[in-house]
Amino acid sequence: MLKNTYDDQDCSIARTLEVIGERWTILIIRDALLGIRRFDQFLNSLGVARTVLTDRLRGLVEDGILERVQYQDHPVRHEYPLTAKGRELAPIVISMMQWGARHEPGPDGPPRRAEHRDCGGEAVVAMVCSDCRRPLGPNEVVIVSNPDRVHTHADSRSVHGASHVPA
Amino acid sequence: MLKNTYDDQDCSIARTLEVIGERWTILIIRDALLGIRRFDQFLNSLGVARTVLTDRLRGLVEDGILERVQYQDHPVRHEYPLTAKGRELAPIVISMMQWGARHEPGPDGPPRRAEHRDCGGEAVVAMVCSDCRRPLGPNEVVIVSNPDRVHTHADSRSVHGASHVPA
Repeated sequence: MLKNTYDDQDCSIARTLEVIGERWTILIIRDALLGIRRFDQFLNSLGVARTVLTDRLRGLVEDGILERVQYQDHPVRHEYPLTAKGRELAPIVISMMQWGARHEPGPDGPPRRAEHRDCGGEAVVAMVCSDCRRPLGPNEVVIVSNPDRVHTHADSRSVHGASHVPA
Repeated sequence: MLKNTYDDQDCSIARTLEVIGERWTILIIRDALLGIRRFDQFLNSLGVARTVLTDRLRGLVEDGILERVQYQDHPVRHEYPLTAKGRELAPIVISMMQWGARHEPGPDGPPRRAEHRDCGGEAVVAMVCSDCRRPLGPNEVVIVSNPDRVHTHADSRSVHGASHVPA
């Protein structure tokens, strides 16, 4: 099956979307963060076709997001725990949960929340300045060209170019 | 054009994906956070078909992510600034940028970064506990059923059910 690729984009966001941007993928990762590991549990939670789930799990294993671990011999069965790389998707998934709960609430309020495992407090995603350490609202943040990159295109709005400049 | 919907999912993440989950949508929001507002600038940055861009911009305006503002009379031209609701997608986009820069780096390193507008420091997305205020690593966070919801399904792994229980 074809992947969602963005071949002309020199962009970390596009590369992330090539791993998690396909339909159902982020909901599989949500379920993995809920503790789901087995095919039939994912199937039950998502209500997705078996072929689609099989394809997505294979892709997530190939990309190092999930492991594939045999847990039973007869018949052979595997489970799919998150890798460390996969667990680091948590801020993406939780920021989506926060935004949805705030801007697209369902009739009964948010069905789930992210929790600090040790103290039971709500885990929230926030932006912070790594220099002055201040918490940042959405109007205080801009995306700019990376000044640390040697061959950065002069126009900070340009998406193309930099990676094709010979060293 | 059909939207990416997840009709059987009672989930804030799924509702967010119904707004931003279609191919190219998040890259349009990235460009908007870079300062791009005009159709031809988006077209140039993304290298996407005009029909696709037209469809995505219309959807983002309908969902309240972008405004549509006329900036020219002859010929009539519009630009598409982010709304407040749209700007609040920044943590999602920036957490994707961080993850991609770390786990799927391009050959020349990350082409862009998020910056604190006032001090020029790097803006980073982090998880923090709203109770004990500690910064949280990905292994310290779990997704659980929302205890504040009245009709929560007993199984925290269940995705269905809660919203269909009569009051």
